[in-house]
Amino acid sequence: MKLKRSGRMVDLTTYLLHHPQQLIPLTFFVERYGSAKSSISEDLAIIKENFEWQGIGTIVTIPGAAGGVKYIPSMSKKEATTIIHELITLLEDPSRILPGGYLYVTDIIGNPRLVNQVGALFASVFAGKKIDVVMTIATKGIPLAYSVASLLNVPVVIVRSNSRVTEGSTVSINYVSGSTKRIQTMALARRSIQKDANVLIIDDFMKAGGTIKGMISLLNEFQAHVAGIGVLVEAEDVSERLVDDYVSITRLAKVDEKEKRIEVETGNYFNQFEEEQK
Amino acid sequence: MKLKRSGRMVDLTTYLLHHPQQLIPLTFFVERYGSAKSSISEDLAIIKENFEWQGIGTIVTIPGAAGGVKYIPSMSKKEATTIIHELITLLEDPSRILPGGYLYVTDIIGNPRLVNQVGALFASVFAGKKIDVVMTIATKGIPLAYSVASLLNVPVVIVRSNSRVTEGSTVSINYVSGSTKRIQTMALARRSIQKDANVLIIDDFMKAGGTIKGMISLLNEFQAHVAGIGVLVEAEDVSERLVDDYVSITRLAKVDEKEKRIEVETGNYFNQFEEEQK
Repeated sequence: MKLKRSGRMVDLTTYLLHHPQQLIPLTFFVERYGSAKSSISEDLAIIKENFEWQGIGTIVTIPGAAGGVKYIPSMSKKEATTIIHELITLLEDPSRILPGGYLYVTDIIGNPRLVNQVGALFASVFAGKKIDVVMTIATKGIPLAYSVASLLNVPVVIVRSNSRVTEGSTVSINYVSGSTKRIQTMALARRSIQKDANVLIIDDFMKAGGTIKGMISLLNEFQAHVAGIGVLVEAEDVSERLVDDYVSITRLAKVDEKEKRIEVETGNYFNQFEEEQK
Repeated sequence: MKLKRSGRMVDLTTYLLHHPQQLIPLTFFVERYGSAKSSISEDLAIIKENFEWQGIGTIVTIPGAAGGVKYIPSMSKKEATTIIHELITLLEDPSRILPGGYLYVTDIIGNPRLVNQVGALFASVFAGKKIDVVMTIATKGIPLAYSVASLLNVPVVIVRSNSRVTEGSTVSINYVSGSTKRIQTMALARRSIQKDANVLIIDDFMKAGGTIKGMISLLNEFQAHVAGIGVLVEAEDVSERLVDDYVSITRLAKVDEKEKRIEVETGNYFNQFEEEQK
Protein backbone atom coordinates (compact mmCIF):
# COMPACT_ATOMS: atom_id res chain seq x y z
CA MET A 1 0.00 0.00 0.00
CA LYS A 2 1.35 3.35 -1.08
CA LEU A 3 0.83 5.71 1.84
CA LYS A 4 0.91 9.49 1.94
CA ARG A 5 3.23 11.08 4.47
CA SER A 6 0.53 11.59 7.11
CA GLY A 7 -0.60 7.94 6.88
CA ARG A 8 3.02 6.83 6.92
CA MET A 9 3.63 8.81 10.12
CA VAL A 10 0.76 6.97 11.84
CA ASP A 11 1.96 3.59 10.65
CA LEU A 12 5.65 4.18 11.45
CA THR A 13 4.82 5.52 14.91
CA THR A 14 2.62 2.51 15.69
CA TYR A 15 5.19 0.06 14.37
CA LEU A 16 8.03 1.56 16.40
CA LEU A 17 5.96 1.76 19.61
CA HIS A 18 4.98 -1.90 19.19
CA HIS A 19 8.60 -3.00 18.58
CA PRO A 20 10.75 -1.29 21.23
CA GLN A 21 14.49 -2.07 21.40
CA GLN A 22 14.30 -3.89 18.08
CA LEU A 23 16.54 -3.04 15.13
CA ILE A 24 14.35 -2.72 12.04
CA PRO A 25 16.07 -2.44 8.62
CA LEU A 26 15.02 0.67 6.70
CA THR A 27 14.33 -1.58 3.70
CA PHE A 28 11.43 -3.08 5.66
CA PHE A 29 9.69 0.31 5.63
CA VAL A 30 10.76 1.03 2.04
CA GLU A 31 8.88 -2.12 0.99
CA ARG A 32 5.97 -1.55 3.35
CA TYR A 33 5.24 1.94 2.02
CA GLY A 34 6.70 1.88 -1.49
CA SER A 35 8.53 5.08 -0.52
CA ALA A 36 12.12 6.21 -1.01
CA LYS A 37 14.60 5.64 1.81
CA SER A 38 15.19 9.39 2.00
CA SER A 39 11.49 10.07 2.69
CA ILE A 40 11.44 7.48 5.45
CA SER A 41 14.56 8.97 7.01
CA GLU A 42 12.81 12.35 7.08
CA ASP A 43 9.75 10.75 8.71
CA LEU A 44 11.97 9.13 11.33
CA ALA A 45 13.59 12.47 12.15
CA ILE A 46 10.14 13.93 12.85
CA ILE A 47 9.22 10.95 15.04
CA LYS A 48 12.50 11.23 16.93
CA GLU A 49 11.87 14.91 17.60
CA ASN A 50 8.33 14.27 18.81
CA PHE A 51 9.20 11.25 21.02
CA GLU A 52 11.90 13.33 22.71
CA TRP A 53 9.45 16.20 23.17
CA GLN A 54 6.90 13.79 24.70
CA GLY A 55 9.63 12.39 26.98
CA ILE A 56 8.93 8.79 25.94
CA GLY A 57 12.27 7.93 24.36
CA THR A 58 14.26 8.35 21.21
CA ILE A 59 14.91 6.87 17.77
CA VAL A 60 18.40 5.64 16.97
CA THR A 61 19.51 5.07 13.39
CA ILE A 62 22.39 2.68 12.75
CA PRO A 63 23.89 3.09 9.28
CA GLY A 64 25.23 0.34 7.04
CA ALA A 65 23.98 -2.95 5.59
CA ALA A 66 23.34 -4.49 9.02
CA GLY A 67 21.87 -1.23 10.28
CA GLY A 68 18.38 0.06 10.71
CA VAL A 69 16.24 2.02 13.11
CA LYS A 70 15.46 1.35 16.75
CA TYR A 71 13.02 2.88 19.22
CA ILE A 72 14.61 3.17 22.66
CA PRO A 73 12.00 3.94 25.33
CA SER A 74 13.31 6.27 27.99
CA MET A 75 11.55 8.68 30.24
CA SER A 76 12.31 12.32 30.77
CA LYS A 77 13.07 13.46 34.30
CA LYS A 78 10.00 15.71 34.20
CA GLU A 79 7.69 12.82 33.29
CA ALA A 80 9.36 10.55 35.88
CA THR A 81 8.86 13.17 38.58
CA THR A 82 5.14 13.45 37.77
CA ILE A 83 4.62 9.69 37.90
CA ILE A 84 6.59 9.20 41.12
CA HIS A 85 4.66 11.99 42.82
CA GLU A 86 1.38 10.43 41.75
CA LEU A 87 2.53 7.10 43.23
CA ILE A 88 3.58 8.74 46.49
CA THR A 89 0.19 10.44 46.85
CA LEU A 90 -1.56 7.12 46.26
CA LEU A 91 0.69 5.25 48.70
CA GLU A 92 0.20 7.81 51.47
CA ASP A 93 -3.58 7.21 51.60
CA PRO A 94 -4.09 6.14 55.27
CA SER A 95 -6.83 3.63 54.37
CA ARG A 96 -4.00 1.40 53.08
CA ILE A 97 -2.85 0.56 56.61
CA LEU A 98 -3.56 -3.07 57.45
CA PRO A 99 -3.19 -4.75 60.86
CA GLY A 100 0.49 -5.20 61.71
CA GLY A 101 1.52 -2.09 59.81
CA TYR A 102 1.31 -3.79 56.40
CA LEU A 103 0.13 -1.76 53.41
CA TYR A 104 -2.66 -2.64 50.98
CA VAL A 105 -1.18 -1.98 47.52
CA THR A 106 -3.20 -4.52 45.53
CA ASP A 107 -5.17 -1.76 43.78
CA ILE A 108 -1.98 0.02 42.64
CA ILE A 109 -0.47 -3.22 41.34
CA GLY A 110 -3.87 -3.97 39.78
CA ASN A 111 -3.94 -0.78 37.71
CA PRO A 112 -2.38 -1.50 34.29
CA ARG A 113 -1.83 2.18 33.52
CA LEU A 114 0.20 2.71 36.71
CA VAL A 115 2.02 -0.59 36.23
CA ASN A 116 2.99 0.41 32.68
CA GLN A 117 4.26 3.75 33.93
CA VAL A 118 6.40 2.06 36.57
CA GLY A 119 7.62 -0.34 33.88
CA ALA A 120 8.63 2.63 31.74
CA LEU A 121 10.52 4.13 34.70
CA PHE A 122 12.59 0.96 35.10
CA ALA A 123 13.03 0.44 31.35
CA SER A 124 14.42 3.95 31.16
CA VAL A 125 17.11 3.29 33.79
CA PHE A 126 18.11 -0.10 32.41
CA ALA A 127 17.78 0.65 28.66
CA GLY A 128 21.54 1.20 28.32
CA LYS A 129 22.52 -2.06 30.04
CA LYS A 130 22.84 -5.46 28.40
CA ILE A 131 19.79 -7.35 29.65
CA ASP A 132 18.69 -10.76 28.37
CA VAL A 133 15.85 -11.55 30.73
CA VAL A 134 13.74 -10.00 33.50
CA MET A 135 13.26 -12.10 36.63
CA THR A 136 10.66 -11.67 39.36
CA ILE A 137 9.04 -13.71 42.12
CA ALA A 138 5.36 -14.60 42.25
CA THR A 139 2.95 -12.86 42.68
CA LYS A 140 2.98 -9.07 42.98
CA GLY A 141 6.17 -8.46 41.00
CA ILE A 142 4.81 -10.17 37.89
CA PRO A 143 2.89 -7.27 36.30
CA LEU A 144 5.83 -4.89 36.81
CA ALA A 145 8.27 -7.43 35.36
CA TYR A 146 6.18 -7.84 32.18
CA SER A 147 5.81 -4.15 31.74
CA VAL A 148 9.60 -3.63 31.93
CA ALA A 149 10.31 -6.67 29.76
CA SER A 150 7.89 -5.48 27.05
CA LEU A 151 9.80 -2.23 26.72
CA LEU A 152 13.22 -3.94 26.85
CA ASN A 153 12.06 -6.61 24.37
CA VAL A 154 13.23 -9.54 26.52
CA PRO A 155 11.45 -12.51 28.17
CA VAL A 156 10.30 -12.81 31.78
CA VAL A 157 11.01 -15.68 34.17
CA ILE A 158 9.00 -16.15 37.34
CA VAL A 159 10.51 -17.64 40.48
CA ARG A 160 8.01 -19.52 42.63
CA SER A 161 7.83 -20.57 46.24
CA ASN A 162 6.79 -24.05 45.12
CA SER A 163 7.78 -26.05 42.05
CA ARG A 164 5.01 -27.10 39.73
CA VAL A 165 4.67 -30.19 37.61
CA THR A 166 4.11 -28.02 34.54
CA GLU A 167 7.52 -26.39 34.87
CA GLY A 168 9.59 -29.51 34.16
CA SER A 169 12.77 -29.92 36.19
CA THR A 170 13.49 -27.00 38.50
CA VAL A 171 16.40 -25.63 40.45
CA SER A 172 15.50 -24.66 43.99
CA ILE A 173 17.34 -23.00 46.84
CA ASN A 174 16.65 -22.22 50.46
CA TYR A 175 16.98 -18.66 51.62
CA VAL A 176 16.43 -16.71 54.81
CA SER A 177 13.83 -13.99 54.68
CA GLY A 178 15.70 -10.93 55.92
CA SER A 179 12.92 -9.52 58.07
CA THR A 180 11.22 -12.64 59.47
CA LYS A 181 14.44 -14.74 59.60
CA ARG A 182 12.44 -17.78 58.43
CA ILE A 183 13.93 -20.30 56.02
CA GLN A 184 12.00 -20.43 52.77
CA THR A 185 12.32 -22.12 49.38
CA MET A 186 12.26 -20.65 45.89
CA ALA A 187 12.37 -22.53 42.61
CA LEU A 188 12.85 -21.79 38.92
CA ALA A 189 12.40 -23.99 35.86
CA ARG A 190 15.75 -25.42 34.71
CA ARG A 191 15.20 -24.42 31.07
CA SER A 192 14.15 -20.86 31.78
CA ILE A 193 17.60 -19.19 32.09
CA GLN A 194 20.71 -19.81 29.98
CA LYS A 195 24.26 -19.82 31.35
CA ASP A 196 25.83 -16.32 31.31
CA ALA A 197 22.47 -14.60 30.83
CA ASN A 198 22.27 -11.00 32.09
CA VAL A 199 19.30 -10.79 34.38
CA LEU A 200 17.34 -7.79 35.62
CA ILE A 201 15.55 -8.53 38.91
CA ILE A 202 12.26 -6.66 39.46
CA ASP A 203 10.07 -6.81 42.56
CA ASP A 204 7.31 -4.77 44.12
CA PHE A 205 8.70 -4.49 47.64
CA MET A 206 12.03 -4.83 49.42
CA LYS A 207 12.48 -4.79 53.16
CA ALA A 208 15.84 -6.23 54.26
CA GLY A 209 16.36 -7.71 50.79
CA GLY A 210 16.30 -11.40 51.75
CA THR A 211 14.06 -12.39 48.87
CA ILE A 212 16.20 -10.54 46.35
CA LYS A 213 19.36 -12.03 47.86
CA GLY A 214 17.69 -15.43 47.38
CA MET A 215 17.06 -14.63 43.71
CA ILE A 216 20.73 -13.68 43.31
CA SER A 217 21.78 -17.04 44.85
CA LEU A 218 19.41 -18.77 42.46
CA LEU A 219 21.04 -16.96 39.52
CA ASN A 220 24.43 -18.22 40.73
CA GLU A 221 23.08 -21.77 40.38
CA PHE A 222 22.32 -20.98 36.74
CA GLN A 223 25.74 -19.30 36.30
CA ALA A 224 23.85 -16.19 35.21
CA HIS A 225 24.66 -12.57 36.08
CA VAL A 226 22.72 -9.84 37.86
CA ALA A 227 22.44 -6.93 35.43
CA GLY A 228 20.34 -4.79 37.75
CA ILE A 229 17.75 -4.74 40.51
CA GLY A 230 14.62 -2.60 40.59
CA VAL A 231 11.98 -2.31 43.32
CA LEU A 232 8.82 -0.24 43.42
CA VAL A 233 8.84 0.35 47.21
CA GLU A 234 11.71 -0.06 49.63
CA ALA A 235 11.23 0.01 53.38
CA GLU A 236 13.18 2.62 55.32
CA ASP A 237 13.73 1.28 58.84
CA VAL A 238 15.98 -1.63 57.98
CA SER A 239 18.85 -2.32 60.37
CA GLU A 240 20.85 -4.35 57.88
CA ARG A 241 20.24 -4.24 54.13
CA LEU A 242 21.28 -7.47 52.42
CA VAL A 243 21.39 -5.95 48.93
CA ASP A 244 23.35 -2.82 47.98
CA ASP A 245 23.04 -1.90 44.37
CA TYR A 246 19.39 -1.43 43.47
CA VAL A 247 17.05 1.16 42.02
CA SER A 248 14.01 2.04 44.14
CA ILE A 249 11.17 4.22 42.93
CA THR A 250 9.69 5.05 46.33
CA ARG A 251 10.74 4.65 49.94
CA LEU A 252 8.34 3.88 52.77
CA ALA A 253 9.58 6.25 55.45
CA LYS A 254 7.03 5.59 58.17
CA VAL A 255 3.83 3.65 58.82
CA ASP A 256 2.13 4.81 61.99
CA GLU A 257 -0.70 2.37 62.61
CA LYS A 258 -1.97 4.22 65.67
CA GLU A 259 -1.98 7.71 64.13
CA LYS A 260 -3.09 6.31 60.76
CA ARG A 261 -0.26 8.01 58.94
CA ILE A 262 1.92 6.81 56.09
CA GLU A 263 4.97 8.73 54.94
CA VAL A 264 6.42 7.93 51.55
CA GLU A 265 9.34 9.61 49.81
CA THR A 266 11.09 9.28 46.47
CA GLY A 267 13.46 6.29 46.33
CA ASN A 268 16.97 6.47 44.92
CA TYR A 269 15.56 6.59 41.36
CA PHE A 270 16.98 9.99 40.47
CA ASN A 271 20.49 9.30 41.89
CA GLN A 272 20.77 6.40 39.50
CA PHE A 273 19.40 8.58 36.71
CA GLU A 274 22.10 11.17 37.31
CA GLU A 275 24.86 8.54 37.43
CA GLU A 276 23.64 7.31 34.04
CA GLN A 277 24.03 10.81 32.63
CA LYS A 278 27.71 11.12 33.63
CA MET B 1 3.96 23.66 21.38
CA LYS B 2 2.63 24.38 17.92
CA LEU B 3 3.12 21.21 15.88
CA LYS B 4 3.08 20.72 12.12
CA ARG B 5 0.75 18.09 10.76
CA SER B 6 3.42 15.37 10.56
CA GLY B 7 4.52 15.96 14.18
CA ARG B 8 0.88 16.09 15.24
CA MET B 9 0.24 12.71 13.58
CA VAL B 10 3.07 11.16 15.64
CA ASP B 11 1.85 12.69 18.86
CA LEU B 12 -1.84 11.90 18.29
CA THR B 13 -1.05 8.30 17.34
CA THR B 14 1.11 7.80 20.44
CA TYR B 15 -1.47 9.40 22.69
CA LEU B 16 -4.32 7.25 21.39
CA LEU B 17 -2.29 4.01 21.55
CA HIS B 18 -1.35 4.80 25.16
CA HIS B 19 -4.97 5.56 26.14
CA PRO B 20 -7.14 2.78 24.69
CA GLN B 21 -10.89 2.75 25.42
CA GLN B 22 -10.68 6.22 26.90
CA LEU B 23 -12.86 9.08 25.72
CA ILE B 24 -10.64 12.10 25.12
CA PRO B 25 -12.31 15.49 24.47
CA LEU B 26 -11.20 17.09 21.19
CA THR B 27 -10.49 20.27 23.13
CA PHE B 28 -7.63 18.42 24.85
CA PHE B 29 -5.86 18.11 21.51
CA VAL B 30 -6.87 21.61 20.42
CA GLU B 31 -5.03 22.95 23.46
CA ARG B 32 -2.13 20.51 23.18
CA TYR B 33 -1.35 21.47 19.58
CA GLY B 34 -2.74 24.97 19.27
CA SER B 35 -4.57 23.74 16.17
CA ALA B 36 -8.13 24.12 14.95
CA LYS B 37 -10.66 21.42 15.76
CA SER B 38 -11.20 20.86 12.04
CA SER B 39 -7.49 20.06 11.49
CA ILE B 40 -7.53 17.57 14.34
CA SER B 41 -10.65 15.92 12.96
CA GLU B 42 -8.84 15.48 9.64
CA ASP B 43 -5.83 13.98 11.43
CA LEU B 44 -8.09 11.57 13.29
CA ALA B 45 -9.69 10.43 10.02
CA ILE B 46 -6.23 9.53 8.69
CA ILE B 47 -5.38 7.66 11.90
CA LYS B 48 -8.67 5.78 11.77
CA GLU B 49 -8.01 4.72 8.18
CA ASN B 50 -4.50 3.56 8.99
CA PHE B 51 -5.42 1.69 12.20
CA GLU B 52 -8.12 -0.17 10.27
CA TRP B 53 -5.64 -0.96 7.49
CA GLN B 54 -3.16 -2.28 10.07
CA GLY B 55 -5.93 -4.34 11.66
CA ILE B 56 -5.26 -2.97 15.15
CA GLY B 57 -8.59 -1.26 15.80
CA THR B 58 -10.53 1.85 15.05
CA ILE B 59 -11.16 5.42 16.15
CA VAL B 60 -14.65 6.39 17.25
CA THR B 61 -15.71 10.02 17.43
CA ILE B 62 -18.62 10.93 19.70
CA PRO B 63 -20.07 14.37 18.92
CA GLY B 64 -21.39 16.91 21.40
CA ALA B 65 -20.20 18.64 24.53
CA ALA B 66 -19.64 15.37 26.42
CA GLY B 67 -18.10 13.77 23.34
CA GLY B 68 -14.59 13.17 22.17
CA VAL B 69 -12.48 10.59 20.48
CA LYS B 70 -11.76 7.01 21.54
CA TYR B 71 -9.32 4.37 20.29
CA ILE B 72 -10.96 0.94 20.35
CA PRO B 73 -8.39 -1.82 19.88
CA SER B 74 -9.71 -4.69 17.80
CA MET B 75 -7.93 -7.20 15.67
CA SER B 76 -8.67 -8.07 12.06
CA LYS B 77 -9.45 -11.70 11.28
CA LYS B 78 -6.34 -11.85 9.10
CA GLU B 79 -4.05 -10.67 11.90
CA ALA B 80 -5.79 -13.00 14.39
CA THR B 81 -5.28 -15.96 12.06
CA THR B 82 -1.55 -15.22 11.75
CA ILE B 83 -1.09 -14.97 15.52
CA ILE B 84 -3.09 -18.11 16.31
CA HIS B 85 -1.15 -20.10 13.71
CA GLU B 86 2.13 -18.93 15.21
CA LEU B 87 0.91 -20.02 18.66
CA ILE B 88 -0.16 -23.43 17.35
CA THR B 89 3.25 -24.00 15.74
CA LEU B 90 4.96 -23.09 19.00
CA LEU B 91 2.66 -25.29 21.09
CA GLU B 92 3.16 -28.33 18.81
CA ASP B 93 6.92 -28.43 19.49
CA PRO B 94 7.37 -31.98 20.92
CA SER B 95 10.08 -30.87 23.36
CA ARG B 96 7.24 -29.34 25.40
CA ILE B 97 6.03 -32.73 26.58
CA LEU B 98 6.69 -33.23 30.29
CA PRO B 99 6.27 -36.45 32.28
CA GLY B 100 2.57 -37.18 32.79
CA GLY B 101 1.60 -35.61 29.47
CA TYR B 102 1.83 -32.05 30.82
CA LEU B 103 3.08 -29.30 28.53
CA TYR B 104 5.88 -26.82 29.19
CA VAL B 105 4.46 -23.43 28.17
CA THR B 106 6.48 -21.24 30.52
CA ASP B 107 8.49 -19.79 27.62
CA ILE B 108 5.34 -18.80 25.71
CA ILE B 109 3.81 -17.17 28.79
CA GLY B 110 7.23 -15.58 29.41
CA ASN B 111 7.34 -13.83 26.04
CA PRO B 112 5.81 -10.35 26.40
CA ARG B 113 5.34 -9.94 22.63
CA LEU B 114 3.27 -13.15 22.41
CA VAL B 115 1.42 -12.31 25.61
CA ASN B 116 0.51 -8.88 24.26
CA GLN B 117 -0.74 -10.44 21.03
CA VAL B 118 -2.94 -12.86 22.96
CA GLY B 119 -4.15 -9.94 25.06
CA ALA B 120 -5.10 -8.10 21.87
CA LEU B 121 -7.01 -11.17 20.65
CA PHE B 122 -9.12 -11.21 23.82
CA ALA B 123 -9.51 -7.44 23.95
CA SER B 124 -10.88 -7.59 20.42
CA VAL B 125 -13.59 -10.11 21.31
CA PHE B 126 -14.61 -8.38 24.53
CA ALA B 127 -14.23 -4.74 23.40
CA GLY B 128 -17.99 -4.41 22.80
CA LYS B 129 -19.01 -5.76 26.20
CA LYS B 130 -19.36 -3.81 29.41
CA ILE B 131 -16.35 -4.89 31.46
CA ASP B 132 -15.28 -3.28 34.73
CA VAL B 133 -12.47 -5.58 35.79
CA VAL B 134 -10.38 -8.51 34.56
CA MET B 135 -9.95 -11.42 36.98
CA THR B 136 -7.39 -14.21 36.86
CA ILE B 137 -5.82 -16.77 39.17
CA ALA B 138 -2.14 -16.84 40.11
CA THR B 139 0.26 -17.48 38.45
CA LYS B 140 0.27 -18.17 34.70
CA GLY B 141 -2.88 -16.23 33.85
CA ILE B 142 -1.52 -12.97 35.29
CA PRO B 143 0.46 -11.70 32.26
CA LEU B 144 -2.46 -12.41 29.90
CA ALA B 145 -4.90 -10.69 32.25
CA TYR B 146 -2.78 -7.52 32.36
CA SER B 147 -2.36 -7.44 28.65
CA VAL B 148 -6.15 -7.64 28.11
CA ALA B 149 -6.86 -5.17 30.91
CA SER B 150 -4.40 -2.62 29.49
CA LEU B 151 -6.28 -2.61 26.19
CA LEU B 152 -9.70 -2.52 27.86
CA ASN B 153 -8.55 0.20 30.28
CA VAL B 154 -9.78 -1.63 33.40
CA PRO B 155 -8.05 -2.98 36.54
CA VAL B 156 -6.95 -6.56 37.23
CA VAL B 157 -7.71 -8.64 40.30
CA ILE B 158 -5.76 -11.76 41.11
CA VAL B 159 -7.32 -14.71 42.89
CA ARG B 160 -4.86 -16.71 45.01
CA SER B 161 -4.77 -20.18 46.44
CA ASN B 162 -3.74 -18.72 49.79
CA SER B 163 -4.71 -15.48 51.46
CA ARG B 164 -1.93 -13.09 52.32
CA VAL B 165 -1.61 -10.69 55.20
CA THR B 166 -0.99 -7.86 52.73
CA GLU B 167 -4.38 -8.28 51.09
CA GLY B 168 -6.46 -7.28 54.12
CA SER B 169 -9.68 -9.21 54.67
CA THR B 170 -10.41 -11.79 51.99
CA VAL B 171 -13.33 -13.84 50.77
CA SER B 172 -12.45 -17.46 50.18
CA ILE B 173 -14.31 -20.46 48.79
CA ASN B 174 -13.63 -24.15 48.38
CA TYR B 175 -13.94 -25.66 44.94
CA VAL B 176 -13.40 -29.03 43.32
CA SER B 177 -10.75 -29.18 40.65
CA GLY B 178 -12.62 -30.71 37.69
CA SER B 179 -9.83 -33.02 36.58
CA THR B 180 -8.21 -34.13 39.84
CA LYS B 181 -11.43 -34.00 41.91
CA ARG B 182 -9.47 -32.55 44.82
CA ILE B 183 -10.95 -29.89 47.07
CA GLN B 184 -8.98 -26.65 46.90
CA THR B 185 -9.30 -23.12 48.22
CA MET B 186 -9.18 -19.78 46.41
CA ALA B 187 -9.28 -16.33 47.96
CA LEU B 188 -9.70 -12.73 46.84
CA ALA B 189 -9.24 -9.48 48.74
CA ARG B 190 -12.58 -8.15 49.99
CA ARG B 191 -11.99 -4.64 48.64
CA SER B 192 -10.90 -5.71 45.17
CA ILE B 193 -14.33 -6.16 43.52
CA GLN B 194 -17.41 -3.98 43.87
CA LYS B 195 -20.99 -5.30 43.98
CA ASP B 196 -22.52 -5.59 40.48
CA ALA B 197 -19.13 -5.32 38.75
CA ASN B 198 -18.91 -6.92 35.30
CA VAL B 199 -15.95 -9.26 35.36
CA LEU B 200 -13.97 -10.81 32.52
CA ILE B 201 -12.24 -14.04 33.62
CA ILE B 202 -8.93 -14.80 31.86
CA ASP B 203 -6.78 -17.90 32.33
CA ASP B 204 -4.02 -19.69 30.49
CA PHE B 205 -5.45 -23.21 30.55
CA MET B 206 -8.81 -24.89 31.03
CA LYS B 207 -9.32 -28.62 31.35
CA ALA B 208 -12.68 -29.53 32.87
CA GLY B 209 -13.19 -25.94 33.98
CA GLY B 210 -13.18 -26.51 37.75
CA THR B 211 -10.92 -23.57 38.46
CA ILE B 212 -12.99 -21.22 36.34
CA LYS B 213 -16.19 -22.54 37.93
CA GLY B 214 -14.55 -21.75 41.28
CA MET B 215 -13.86 -18.18 40.13
CA ILE B 216 -17.52 -17.84 39.11
CA SER B 217 -18.63 -19.02 42.59
CA LEU B 218 -16.26 -16.50 44.11
CA LEU B 219 -17.84 -13.73 41.98
CA ASN B 220 -21.26 -14.78 43.32
CA GLU B 221 -19.95 -14.10 46.82
CA PHE B 222 -19.13 -10.55 45.69
CA GLN B 223 -22.53 -10.24 43.93
CA ALA B 224 -20.60 -9.50 40.76
CA HIS B 225 -21.36 -10.72 37.23
CA VAL B 226 -19.41 -12.78 34.73
CA ALA B 227 -19.07 -10.66 31.59
CA GLY B 228 -16.98 -13.20 29.72
CA ILE B 229 -14.41 -15.97 29.97
CA GLY B 230 -11.26 -16.30 27.89
CA VAL B 231 -8.65 -19.07 27.92
CA LEU B 232 -5.47 -19.42 25.89
CA VAL B 233 -5.52 -23.23 25.70
CA GLU B 234 -8.44 -25.57 26.32
CA ALA B 235 -7.99 -29.33 26.62
CA GLU B 236 -9.92 -31.50 24.18
CA ASP B 237 -10.56 -34.85 25.89
CA VAL B 238 -12.84 -33.68 28.66
CA SER B 239 -15.75 -35.94 29.55
CA GLU B 240 -17.74 -33.24 31.29
CA ARG B 241 -17.07 -29.54 30.80
CA LEU B 242 -18.12 -27.51 33.85
CA VAL B 243 -18.18 -24.19 31.98
CA ASP B 244 -20.09 -23.54 28.75
CA ASP B 245 -19.72 -20.05 27.48
CA TYR B 246 -16.05 -19.23 26.95
CA VAL B 247 -13.66 -18.07 24.25
CA SER B 248 -10.64 -20.30 23.64
CA ILE B 249 -7.76 -19.36 21.38
CA THR B 250 -6.29 -22.83 20.93
CA ARG B 251 -7.41 -26.37 21.67
CA LEU B 252 -5.06 -29.14 22.75
CA ALA B 253 -6.32 -32.03 20.64
CA LYS B 254 -3.80 -34.69 21.61
CA VAL B 255 -0.63 -35.17 23.64
CA ASP B 256 1.05 -38.46 22.82
CA GLU B 257 3.85 -38.86 25.35
CA LYS B 258 5.11 -42.12 23.83
CA GLU B 259 5.19 -40.94 20.22
CA LYS B 260 6.33 -37.43 21.28
CA ARG B 261 3.53 -35.75 19.36
CA ILE B 262 1.38 -32.80 20.24
CA GLU B 263 -1.64 -31.81 18.17
CA VAL B 264 -3.07 -28.34 18.63
CA GLU B 265 -5.94 -26.74 16.74
CA THR B 266 -7.67 -23.37 16.70
CA GLY B 267 -10.06 -22.94 19.62
CA ASN B 268 -13.56 -21.50 19.26
CA TYR B 269 -12.09 -17.99 18.80
CA PHE B 270 -13.46 -17.42 15.31
CA ASN B 271 -17.00 -18.71 16.08
CA GLN B 272 -17.27 -16.02 18.72
CA PHE B 273 -15.86 -13.48 16.28
CA GLU B 274 -18.54 -14.32 13.70
CA GLU B 275 -21.31 -14.12 16.29
CA GLU B 276 -20.05 -10.65 17.20
CA GLN B 277 -20.35 -9.60 13.55
CA LYS B 278 -24.03 -10.61 13.25
